[in-house]
Amino acid sequence: MTDTHVTKRPLTLLGLGGMGTALARAWLAAGHPVTVWNRTAAKAGALAPHGARVAADPAAAVAANGLVVLCLLDDASIAAVLDGVDLTGKDLVNLTTGTPAEGRARARWAEERGARFVDAGIMGTPTMIDTPGSGAYVFYSGSRALFEAHREVLEVPAAARFVGADPGHAALHDVALLSAMTGLFAGISHAYALIEGEDIAPGDLSPLLSEWLGTMGFFVGNAAERLTSRDFTTGVVSNLAMQVAASGTLLRTAADQGVSTELISPYLDLMRERLEADPARHGAEDTVGAITLLRRGAA
Amino acid sequence: MTDTHVTKRPLTLLGLGGMGTALARAWLAAGHPVTVWNRTAAKAGALAPHGARVAADPAAAVAANGLVVLCLLDDASIAAVLDGVDLTGKDLVNLTTGTPAEGRARARWAEERGARFVDAGIMGTPTMIDTPGSGAYVFYSGSRALFEAHREVLEVPAAARFVGADPGHAALHDVALLSAMTGLFAGISHAYALIEGEDIAPGDLSPLLSEWLGTMGFFVGNAAERLTSRDFTTGVVSNLAMQVAASGTLLRTAADQGVSTELISPYLDLMRERLEADPARHGAEDTVGAITLLRRGAA
Ligand SMILES: NC(=O)c1ccc[n+]([C@@H]2O[C@H](COP(=O)([O-])OP(=O)(O)OC[C@H]3O[C@@H](n4cnc5c(N)ncnc54)[C@H](OP(=O)(O)O)[C@@H]3O)[C@@H](O)[C@H]2O)c1
Ligand SMILES: NC(=O)c1ccc[n+]([C@@H]2O[C@H](COP(=O)([O-])OP(=O)(O)OC[C@H]3O[C@@H](n4cnc5c(N)ncnc54)[C@H](OP(=O)(O)O)[C@@H]3O)[C@@H](O)[C@H]2O)c1
Repeated sequence: MTDTHVTKRPLTLLGLGGMGTALARAWLAAGHPVTVWNRTAAKAGALAPHGARVAADPAAAVAANGLVVLCLLDDASIAAVLDGVDLTGKDLVNLTTGTPAEGRARARWAEERGARFVDAGIMGTPTMIDTPGSGAYVFYSGSRALFEAHREVLEVPAAARFVGADPGHAALHDVALLSAMTGLFAGISHAYALIEGEDIAPGDLSPLLSEWLGTMGFFVGNAAERLTSRDFTTGVVSNLAMQVAASGTLLRTAADQGVSTELISPYLDLMRERLEADPARHGAEDTVGAITLLRRGAA
Repeated sequence: MTDTHVTKRPLTLLGLGGMGTALARAWLAAGHPVTVWNRTAAKAGALAPHGARVAADPAAAVAANGLVVLCLLDDASIAAVLDGVDLTGKDLVNLTTGTPAEGRARARWAEERGARFVDAGIMGTPTMIDTPGSGAYVFYSGSRALFEAHREVLEVPAAARFVGADPGHAALHDVALLSAMTGLFAGISHAYALIEGEDIAPGDLSPLLSEWLGTMGFFVGNAAERLTSRDFTTGVVSNLAMQVAASGTLLRTAADQGVSTELISPYLDLMRERLEADPARHGAEDTVGAITLLRRGAA
């Protein structure tokens, strides 16, 4: 019997939680032979009818293929699963969310075991995997050779974006975007809290909020330009002094509405701190300048 | 001599700061007779060559026309300018930024003086005024009769959105949108702080951030639906337990990068508080549920 099909590259996937299961199904649907293992065996068994080969333990799963993909809970669970397993000559792709430092340490750990390594950060939820137009994609960084060798396979469940040789940079991009999202969600939450109990339907505020936040998204590009040029003064449309003056209206409105200011006051305080450090100099600047105060966290 | 032009409605404008001047020029350019007054007379004088009629004092400016527009610094400056001036029969449009409570009190104050009143909130900067496609517009609330009578004039400098008879609601919409923007700016600021000193250019992160925040803007509609239905459980794609578990990665990354967590931790703390109040019940919920905790501000 002659197989006229192009043979799809096989891979191993360790970890079949919500995300791992979605990934496995995407690769299986695309015709890739997938060997799976999961701590709770039932989740691996559930994929057998879809064509998955179920390995008895992590060592057997890793031995089955050259490309080994991890989608476990966190960095600690990687050690729990792979410590003691022979990784010599393997290509390890770590889709487990972690910090940049964890990505870098995991890259050294893989290298010591004779494996190539890329770290990754998934930007999307399981429902967005293998769903064209969902906007989901994955950041990768580390071994470019590994990434290029397996790019086609990796792009099956979601689009891929390689962001450099530093194995910490996939996680750093991931966390930067999630952190920005945290601020966005906080602002939206505060806005809805303000209208609670008023004769304003959330569904009426919603399109106004979406449109406004879309318009105010200009701040992303504005900040990038000013942080690159370090010019916080030219062409300012809404200066720091005015923003700080306006903050009183935001705080008093929250108090009047019985809404805690906890989600908006830290940024208002940051702007005020920047202004007060040198009112004459910073007052006419763009608010982007306040970003320079943030690198004071404990290392 | 026969005037074949349609006569444009005259109006009075008090306050010629950056915003008032932009408004005055828009009305003058459209052919409306505009009587102006400003505390610092030079700013009024500068508009005379553009056709503005300069009044000697607020009383003369108010006496000149039935429609009187205010664009002063804050609510206190309105009292400073108009206390003692006869407002009987006038239509007062207050474009001065304030709180909902100030808008309501100012409406009562106007009514006591025999004037009709709408409060307003300008969503845009002076450079966006009279600039088609800039996205600028103005919220109005209060007397619908006044608004309808002057709608055409009011729509000259920027689009108009009437949001109800409650004179506090223009300000409430204004502050809700500005508060949401505060969160958005905070999140973006934190993201850029994270990559400072890394080999990642702000201009490279910028398009990724814009795209991601656009995708995550779904939270606006998601929140409106859930706050209306009070159903925080059906069809959850990213549940609270997972978001709280993931928050550690955000906080540790910030610490590793030497970035203060002040802008992101309040929302992460709010999600944790919601989860811990009843982990079994809230863990599977959408994060929108955390909004219900915010109405604990001092009234
Ligand atoms: N879900 C999302 O929306 C999403 C989005 C982006 C990124 N991610 C990331 O993708 C990864 C997986 O997420 P998920 O949603 O699939 O999580 P999940 O549903 O909680 O699954 C966690 C997986 O890790 C395994 N695991 C946990 N601790 C382990 C240990 N000590 N030893 C062996 N296996 C262990 C679990 O095995 P058991 O089945 O035996 O518990 C399960 O396979 C996480 O790093 C997550 O941050 C998820
Ligand atoms: N600029 C914006 O981007 C923007 C956006 C939305 C809303 N707004 C709102 O529009 C209003 C005006 O803003 P703006 O940008 O034009 O501010 P501005 O440039 O600071 O001008 C303030 C105006 O108020 C006058 N004023 C202040 N205190 C006064 C007092 N005690 N008595 C009499 N006049 C007084 C000033 O007169 P002098 O010239 O004599 O100082 C000036 O005309 C504010 O409520 C602001 O929040 C502005």
